[in-house]
Amino acid sequence: MKLFMDENFLLSTGTAEELYHKYAGKMPILDYHCHIDPREIAENRKYENMTQIWLGGDHYKWRLMRANGVNEHYITGDASDREKFQKWAETLEKSIGNPLFHWSHLELQRYFDYHGMLDGETAEEVWNLCNEQLQQDSMRVRNLISSSCVTLLCTTDDPADDLKWHKMIKDDESFDVQVLPAWRPDKAMNLDKPQYPEYLSRLSEVSGVKIRTFADLKEALDARMKYFCDRGCRVSDHGLDYVMYDPVPQAEIERIFADRLAGKKLSGQDIARFKTAFMLFAASRYAQMGWVMQLHYGCKRDNNTAMYIKLGPDTGYDCISNYAPAHQLTGFLNAVNETGGLPKTILYSLNPGDDELIGTVLGCFQNSDAVGKIQQGSAWWFNDNKTGMIKQMTSLANLGLLGNFVGMLTDSRSFLSYPRHEYFRRIMCELIGGWVENGEYPKNMKNLEKIVKGISYNNAVRYFDFDLEIK
Amino acid sequence: MKLFMDENFLLSTGTAEELYHKYAGKMPILDYHCHIDPREIAENRKYENMTQIWLGGDHYKWRLMRANGVNEHYITGDASDREKFQKWAETLEKSIGNPLFHWSHLELQRYFDYHGMLDGETAEEVWNLCNEQLQQDSMRVRNLISSSCVTLLCTTDDPADDLKWHKMIKDDESFDVQVLPAWRPDKAMNLDKPQYPEYLSRLSEVSGVKIRTFADLKEALDARMKYFCDRGCRVSDHGLDYVMYDPVPQAEIERIFADRLAGKKLSGQDIARFKTAFMLFAASRYAQMGWVMQLHYGCKRDNNTAMYIKLGPDTGYDCISNYAPAHQLTGFLNAVNETGGLPKTILYSLNPGDDELIGTVLGCFQNSDAVGKIQQGSAWWFNDNKTGMIKQMTSLANLGLLGNFVGMLTDSRSFLSYPRHEYFRRIMCELIGGWVENGEYPKNMKNLEKIVKGISYNNAVRYFDFDLEIK
Amino acid sequence: MKLFMDENFLLSTGTAEELYHKYAGKMPILDYHCHIDPREIAENRKYENMTQIWLGGDHYKWRLMRANGVNEHYITGDASDREKFQKWAETLEKSIGNPLFHWSHLELQRYFDYHGMLDGETAEEVWNLCNEQLQQDSMRVRNLISSSCVTLLCTTDDPADDLKWHKMIKDDESFDVQVLPAWRPDKAMNLDKPQYPEYLSRLSEVSGVKIRTFADLKEALDARMKYFCDRGCRVSDHGLDYVMYDPVPQAEIERIFADRLAGKKLSGQDIARFKTAFMLFAASRYAQMGWVMQLHYGCKRDNNTAMYIKLGPDTGYDCISNYAPAHQLTGFLNAVNETGGLPKTILYSLNPGDDELIGTVLGCFQNSDAVGKIQQGSAWWFNDNKTGMIKQMTSLANLGLLGNFVGMLTDSRSFLSYPRHEYFRRIMCELIGGWVENGEYPKNMKNLEKIVKGISYNNAVRYFDFDLEIK
Repeated sequence: MKLFMDENFLLSTGTAEELYHKYAGKMPILDYHCHIDPREIAENRKYENMTQIWLGGDHYKWRLMRANGVNEHYITGDASDREKFQKWAETLEKSIGNPLFHWSHLELQRYFDYHGMLDGETAEEVWNLCNEQLQQDSMRVRNLISSSCVTLLCTTDDPADDLKWHKMIKDDESFDVQVLPAWRPDKAMNLDKPQYPEYLSRLSEVSGVKIRTFADLKEALDARMKYFCDRGCRVSDHGLDYVMYDPVPQAEIERIFADRLAGKKLSGQDIARFKTAFMLFAASRYAQMGWVMQLHYGCKRDNNTAMYIKLGPDTGYDCISNYAPAHQLTGFLNAVNETGGLPKTILYSLNPGDDELIGTVLGCFQNSDAVGKIQQGSAWWFNDNKTGMIKQMTSLANLGLLGNFVGMLTDSRSFLSYPRHEYFRRIMCELIGGWVENGEYPKNMKNLEKIVKGISYNNAVRYFDFDLEIK
Repeated sequence: MKLFMDENFLLSTGTAEELYHKYAGKMPILDYHCHIDPREIAENRKYENMTQIWLGGDHYKWRLMRANGVNEHYITGDASDREKFQKWAETLEKSIGNPLFHWSHLELQRYFDYHGMLDGETAEEVWNLCNEQLQQDSMRVRNLISSSCVTLLCTTDDPADDLKWHKMIKDDESFDVQVLPAWRPDKAMNLDKPQYPEYLSRLSEVSGVKIRTFADLKEALDARMKYFCDRGCRVSDHGLDYVMYDPVPQAEIERIFADRLAGKKLSGQDIARFKTAFMLFAASRYAQMGWVMQLHYGCKRDNNTAMYIKLGPDTGYDCISNYAPAHQLTGFLNAVNETGGLPKTILYSLNPGDDELIGTVLGCFQNSDAVGKIQQGSAWWFNDNKTGMIKQMTSLANLGLLGNFVGMLTDSRSFLSYPRHEYFRRIMCELIGGWVENGEYPKNMKNLEKIVKGISYNNAVRYFDFDLEIK
Repeated sequence: MKLFMDENFLLSTGTAEELYHKYAGKMPILDYHCHIDPREIAENRKYENMTQIWLGGDHYKWRLMRANGVNEHYITGDASDREKFQKWAETLEKSIGNPLFHWSHLELQRYFDYHGMLDGETAEEVWNLCNEQLQQDSMRVRNLISSSCVTLLCTTDDPADDLKWHKMIKDDESFDVQVLPAWRPDKAMNLDKPQYPEYLSRLSEVSGVKIRTFADLKEALDARMKYFCDRGCRVSDHGLDYVMYDPVPQAEIERIFADRLAGKKLSGQDIARFKTAFMLFAASRYAQMGWVMQLHYGCKRDNNTAMYIKLGPDTGYDCISNYAPAHQLTGFLNAVNETGGLPKTILYSLNPGDDELIGTVLGCFQNSDAVGKIQQGSAWWFNDNKTGMIKQMTSLANLGLLGNFVGMLTDSRSFLSYPRHEYFRRIMCELIGGWVENGEYPKNMKNLEKIVKGISYNNAVRYFDFDLEIK
C-alpha cells in the first residue's frame, strides 16, 4: 500500500517514477490559459485567510458544498470566513475520488507544507497554520507564481480591455514572469445577450470605430487585435455552445446585425448565422497573425435561473451539453481552411464523449504549417481529473501523436492552482511509464525524455511561439 | 490467481477486503426500487423448480438464450422446464464477462450452497440439487427476503392499484420486512397508448373522480397520491423516453387531452407537450409531499414488432436510446425548481454516455433541502455490471460527492436477486479500497467506514426518510 | 518490467499467456473483410521497397505524418521513397500509445525478423534490411498471405466488377487460399453522387439490364448478386453515413429515381428515402441468399475539400460522425425483420460511444436462425486499437455472448496487415485471462479453449458458412 499522497503519488511503476522525477517534475510551467486577474498580480495582492484565497470565487468548491447539503449562507452568503472554511473541510472528507480532494491536498502540501488530511476535525488546525503563513510576504501572489516555476502565463481578456495591468506588470523589472493577454471576444459575438448594445458602445469607444454595421464591428476588432498583438498576445479563446456552421452571404449578416441593433427579436437561425460569420472572420485573422485559436465548446451555462438571478454567471450552475454536430464542426474548419487557411487550433469539448470524434477531426486538418497544428485540448473543467486526463491522452495517443501534445493549463481563477500541472504530469508519466513497463514502448530514455519534457513544457513553447527557451 | 468466486470475489487488495468484510458485507439491504409482485409476498409463494424461479419472467436471461441461437420454444414456448433449464445452462457457459454469469453463480452459492460452475454438463446435478431445496419452506419467498437481510423494499405500483397485498403484508405480524408501494404513473401519462381511455376509466373508478379533462386527471391523481401516501409511499418512479421540456399554456394541454379523448390523432409535439405538463404537475406534488422523484430515461422499448405481438412488453426487445437533449433535461428541472421547488430527484439514463452529463446536471440543482438532494441513480439495467458500476461511481466521484450516494437497488422481478447488492458492494469496496491502496485517500478507517456504510445502506435510509435505524 | 514486444507482448498473466500460446496463436486466419486488390494476388506482385509496400496507399500512416508537421511532398508527393521512409520513421518514434507503432513493429518482427525500434536513427538500417528481403520470391504477396496462415479472405467488390481476378486466383491450383468476392453496392445506392448516371450505365452494361427505373436497378442488382453468388460470395458490405429509416411507397421511390436521372436536385429527405428503399431491398435479398449483411456507419468522409480535390477519397480526411439515431437503426432492422426476415447482420459504428447502444440492439433481433445472428463488428478503423478492442469486447460481454463473437478482420489495403489478428488475439486472451485470474470465470480449460478458438477463427467459419474446417 502506498502512503497518502507521498512523493510517488500516482506513480505506480519504476519507469513512471523515473520519468516524473527526472524530467516532468523539473520542468517549469507555461500556463497558456487561465482566468486570474492581472490586477492582482500588478498589485501583488496578499490574501487574508484560506477562505479568501480558496473559496472566494471557486465555483468548483461551491458545487461540492451544495452537493453536501450546505446552506448557501455558508457558501456565497454572509457566514464568517471561519464558518465557510469549516463547511468546506466537512465536505472535503466525503469527496473521495474527486480531483478537488487531490488539488486541495497538493496545495496544502506544496504551499503550506501541511501533509495531513483536511476534514472537519483538522479544520481548526489547518485554518490557523495556513492563515499564519498567508501573512508572510512570500505568500503574496507574485511569489506564489514564481515559486511555482511559472515562466509565462496568459490571462483571458476582453477586446475592450485596455490591458493596463499587463503593461504595469511588464514594466516592473522586479517580476520576470511573462504575463500576456489572451483575446476572448465572446461579448463581441454574443449578440443574443441583452447587454450587447451596451458592449458595442464600449468597444466603439475604446477602438475609435463607431460600430453601426458588422463591417464596423470587424474594423473595431481589427484595431483591438492589433492592440493586443502589440502587447504580446499570441492566443485567442472562444466559449461556444457548439462549433456552428451555417454560412450565408455577408448582406444577410448585415441584415441580422441591423435587426439586432434595431431591437428586433432574432431567430435561433439568425443567431447561429451571425456567430458563424463572426467565427469565420475571427479565425481568418488569427491565421494571418499566427495566433492560436482555442475553441471551448459543449457547455450549457446558467441552468438554474433562480440562482443566476442571485449570483450571476460562473457560480457553479453549468453543465455538459450533448449537442455538437460533427458536420458543423468539420464544416466550419473546412470553410476556414478554404478561405485563407486555418490558424493553429486547439479544440476542447466539455463532453468526454467527444474525445474520439475530436481526435479524428484533428487528422483531417493537420499539415506542415506546424507540428501538431490542430490540437485536442487537455481534459477541460469537469474532465480535469485522473479519469478525464487518462481518457483524453489515451484517445489522443490512439488517434494521433501524443508526443506533440501541448499539454496542461490551469484554466483557474486561483493563484494556488499550479499543482494541477504537477497532477497532470504525474498522470502523464504514469500512463507513459505504464506502457514502457508493459513492453509497449522501448525503455529508450532519449526518446522518452523528449516526449515527457515536450508534453510538460517544450511543445507549448514551440507551438505558441513564445519568447522562451526550450528546456 | 484467485479462486473462482470465493469469499474475496472482486476484492483484489487488503483494504478492499477489509472494507467489504468489516462494513459493507454486514449491512442490511434497503431495496428502494424493484418489480417484484407483492401478491407473491402476501401469499408467501413457494416455487416449484429452478426454471420457474429463475427463467419465469427474466428477460435478461431470455436475451442471452436468443443470442445463443436457442429456439423460442425453449425460452418462452412450450418446452418442459427441464429442457429450458438445460438451454440456459448451455448458454451460461458462453457468457464469460456477463453479469448474469456472476449473478447466477452468486445465487447458486448464497441460496443453494452450490459452488461449482453451471454449464451444460452440470445442469442435471444443479437442477436436482436446487429443486430439492426449493421444496423446503425456508425457500418460500418471505424467507428468501428476510434471510437476505432486507429491511425494506419498494415495489412498483400503478396509481389505480388498490394496494391490498401491501396491506395484507403489513397486517401480518409474522413478517417484519417493510414492503412499501412506489408510485409509477406511466399509464396515466402515456396518452399516446391505445389503452389510454380504458386506463382512465379504471382510474376514474378507483379515484372517484370522473376524468373528462386534464384538470380532472390531476384531481384523480391527487386522490390516489394521498392514498399511496397513507400507505407509506415515499418514492415515485417514471419511465420516460427522454426527459422532455416543451411547455405551453394549460389551455393548450386541455385541448390536447380533449383531442385524445375524442379519438383524434395527436402529433409528436402534442404528445411531448402533454407529457411535459404531466411531469411538471407530478414533480411539484412530489416536492410538496417530500417524495423522491425517480426518472428513468434513455430507453427505446419494444423494437421487434413481431415478437411484441407474440409476447407483449418487457420480454427482452428493448434497447438504449441516444436521444436525450441536455437542454430539455435542464429546462424541465429548472422549471420545476422555479415553480414550487424540485423534489429530491434521482436521474437514471440507460445510455452510459450520459453519465458525465448527468453528473454535471446534479450540481446545478443541489441545495440545502437535503444532503445529496439530486442523485445519479446506480448503473441501471444494461449498465448493471462491473463496467457500468465502476463507470457510474467514478463519474459521480469525479463530479460530485460519492460519499452521499444512495447506492444500489435490484430493479428485479425475482426473489433471488438480492446478491446483486453484494455484487455492487464488492465493486464499490474494490474501487474505494483501490484508491486508498494507491495513496489517493488516507487509510482513515473512521471516514471510510462512514462512506462505505453510507453507500451500502445508511444514505438511502436518510435520503428517503424511511422509518429505519441507521446502522 | 516486460521486454519490448517480446513473445508475451500484451499478455500480463499466466492464464493469458496460456490461452494465447496454446490456442489463439495457433489458429489460422479468416479475413472476412479487407480491401486488398485481387489483381495483386492474381499477379503475385512483388514490392520494390518498404515505402511502396507500407506507405503506398496507407492513409493511417499519412495522417500521423501530417500530425507531425511533415510536408505533403514527403507523404503523397514527389519525394523519393527513401525520403518518405525517413519521415515515417521520425514520426513513428513520437507515436507512443498508437496502434501503428505496434502494428509496424509486429510487421517488422514477423515478416522481416527485425526486433529493434524503428526511428529516425535506425531508418537507414531498417530500410536496407527490409528492402533486401523484399527482393526474395518468398516476399511476393501470395507467400505473405499463406505464410500468415490465412485460409480465406474476402475482398471488397463493386456489383459491376467482373471478378476476373478472383477467377484467375481460383483456377490457379498452386495457391490454395480461398479469395472470395464480397458485395459492396455503395455506388449503386449513392444517387447523390455526381458520377451516379455514369455508374448506372456501367451496371446496365455488365448486367444486361437497361436501368431506367428503380425496378430496373433492382433487376440488374439481382443479376449481379447471382453472379457474385456463383463465384462464392457469402458477404455483403455497406458504407453508410448512418443507418437510416424513412420508408415511403415504392411509387415515390420511382419518382425520386426519375428526378435524379432527369438531373433534378434532390432534397436530403429524398436521398434518405431512396437509400432506405435500397437498403430494404438489399437486406431482403441477403436474407434469401443466406448472405451476411455488414453495415459500417458513423463515418463522416472527405472533410477537407482542398485535399479532396488534390488526392480524392480515402486519403486520410475522414472522421467519426455523431449522428446515428437509435430509432432509425431499430426501425430499419425491424422493418426488414417484418418483411421476409433479417439476414445475419454485423453492425459496426465508427463512434465508440455507440458500443453499448449496439450491444442492446443486437439482443432485440437475435433468434434461432443462427448462433449469434446479429453481431457487433470488431472495433473498426479509428477504434482498431487496444482501447477500442477492450471496450468493444467488454461491452459485448456485458450485453450479450462474447463466446459467439465472430472476431477480427484486417479491413486493410496492405499485405503486411495480418499481424493485426495477432494483436487482437493477444488483447482478447489478456482480457479473458484476466477474468480467469481474477476469479470471475473458472479456469476450465475445455470451455476456455472453445471460447478462445471460437473468437479467433471457428465462430467465423460457422457464421459465414464458409467451406472450411473447424480447428
